[in-house]
Amino acid sequence: MPDPLSGWNTGPVKSAILSFVDKVALPGSAEFVPAADRIAVFDNDGTLWCEQPMPVQGFFLSDRVKQLALKDPSLKERQPFKAFIEGDHKTLHELGKQALQELMFATHAGMTEREFATIAQGWFASAKHPQLGALFTQLTYRPQIELIGYLRDNGFKIYVVSGGGVDFIRAFAAEAYGIPPEQVIGSSAKLKAEVRDGRIDLLKVADLGSFDDREAKVENIGLHIGRRPILAFGNSDGDLAMLRYTREGRGPRLALLLHHDDPEREFAYDRAFKISPLAEALDHADDYGITCVSMRRDWNTVFADRRVRPSAAA
Amino acid sequence: MPDPLSGWNTGPVKSAILSFVDKVALPGSAEFVPAADRIAVFDNDGTLWCEQPMPVQGFFLSDRVKQLALKDPSLKERQPFKAFIEGDHKTLHELGKQALQELMFATHAGMTEREFATIAQGWFASAKHPQLGALFTQLTYRPQIELIGYLRDNGFKIYVVSGGGVDFIRAFAAEAYGIPPEQVIGSSAKLKAEVRDGRIDLLKVADLGSFDDREAKVENIGLHIGRRPILAFGNSDGDLAMLRYTREGRGPRLALLLHHDDPEREFAYDRAFKISPLAEALDHADDYGITCVSMRRDWNTVFADRRVRPSAAA
Repeated sequence: MPDPLSGWNTGPVKSAILSFVDKVALPGSAEFVPAADRIAVFDNDGTLWCEQPMPVQGFFLSDRVKQLALKDPSLKERQPFKAFIEGDHKTLHELGKQALQELMFATHAGMTEREFATIAQGWFASAKHPQLGALFTQLTYRPQIELIGYLRDNGFKIYVVSGGGVDFIRAFAAEAYGIPPEQVIGSSAKLKAEVRDGRIDLLKVADLGSFDDREAKVENIGLHIGRRPILAFGNSDGDLAMLRYTREGRGPRLALLLHHDDPEREFAYDRAFKISPLAEALDHADDYGITCVSMRRDWNTVFADRRVRPSAAA
Repeated sequence: MPDPLSGWNTGPVKSAILSFVDKVALPGSAEFVPAADRIAVFDNDGTLWCEQPMPVQGFFLSDRVKQLALKDPSLKERQPFKAFIEGDHKTLHELGKQALQELMFATHAGMTEREFATIAQGWFASAKHPQLGALFTQLTYRPQIELIGYLRDNGFKIYVVSGGGVDFIRAFAAEAYGIPPEQVIGSSAKLKAEVRDGRIDLLKVADLGSFDDREAKVENIGLHIGRRPILAFGNSDGDLAMLRYTREGRGPRLALLLHHDDPEREFAYDRAFKISPLAEALDHADDYGITCVSMRRDWNTVFADRRVRPSAAA
């Protein structure tokens, strides 16, 4: 029988995953979990695909803002648009979450869900990572795609629970991960049902529905899924509450934390990454029963497109 | 082959359902819809089970308020608690939605999701309809349970989209309808992730998350499901936006509206029912392409428990 996790190196982490799935999915196992309760949640940026030098949605925002600036050149002189157009990441970090929200609304709202999906899907078809030269959808992590498939084959229902925009992720998650729109939870603008041209449509409005990060991830799991997952996978402090919530349930649980320690094949970063740092979760992983995954040690391959090599591109 | 909808009488409505399912689910059909897009949404109160003389959750509220009043007798003199304890429906209607919300928070919030689920499941195990004498879970509609099963067998994913409380419905929907918690959308209190006894838990707080009625049903479908359903079933004006949203999508669509016109076997009511009237949707069903279902004409049986007869009980 072929190895279902061939992208994972033999070692304690791979063994922990395989034995966890065996014990919850094998009928007759002492810790068997009915299929209906086999819920797994995955963060997206940095957990399922590359988030360096900034999350993919940042590049989408940037391209969209440039297109808006073609129509309205005054945007080029106004923050936070100016920083985005100029690729000035330092200023963007300084401007903080409020700026991000303003950019989100300018590029993600004021249109229907369907219109946004069309724009995002068009962008994914051709947009490439500026340093790595590959389509963003080729920068998903092969070992994680394998893991998702392996969990699915073992009766798990898999959710993405991301700080990224829910409609942005829905635009590629079905093709990239085999995860349908209803299994994507993310940050969201409020929706407004309105009659347009005689039919009811859903308009994305410039008003924050949810910023799906940290404790909000747990709260949105409660709202959307209605029970505690048995497996969670994240890579930053923004995922810590979700990892703890999962791990602290009764019965068999597995919480996994990906550490980006692989500058040769991907990137090496943790507490210094301003957009989404990893510090508390790393320091207290043992206290919370969280299993640390080392990209360098535990993965024998990284990207969906095997040709991608940051060190070669640099 | 046995009739999958044996509780439905032969006629135009049953034919419309059968031919709709055939055309969307049969590979090779000109109007075939991939399984991933076969989303069906059902209202709950009055669509999947009896909502007279008030929605079942009203009885739960009443019983819970009585229990709270045992601990705090001053509640008996304060509205809206007083009206609930005395079964004074007229006053309750007059006090309106604000009163309902206050009662909801008093009985549904200030505890974890898990604690609430335990209370609700305990109640369902023994609570009976005061006039009909059956457990509330025996007052689901047999033809609808059949329809849900028939849709599921044809690859549909079925959601409850209800004005009722999401956690209340989740407490019985898996057993009653075979619908898991993540496929229940409803009104909700906000959730707060908090550390209690060293572990993260989800607390239901006294703050409205969503009142899932009318346009909000469509907005919550967008948030939770992320695409337009192809089949919707409702029974009141509170469902009209959802019925229209479903019906007005491109391709094959079916929107069904149950009319309670059967005083012999259930109840007869529409525009005079203050809690959830049916008027606009009935008057404009033809304009919106909505198919009216007559309980009297189209169903040959009503309740899951066949012995229940309101006319016998009255």
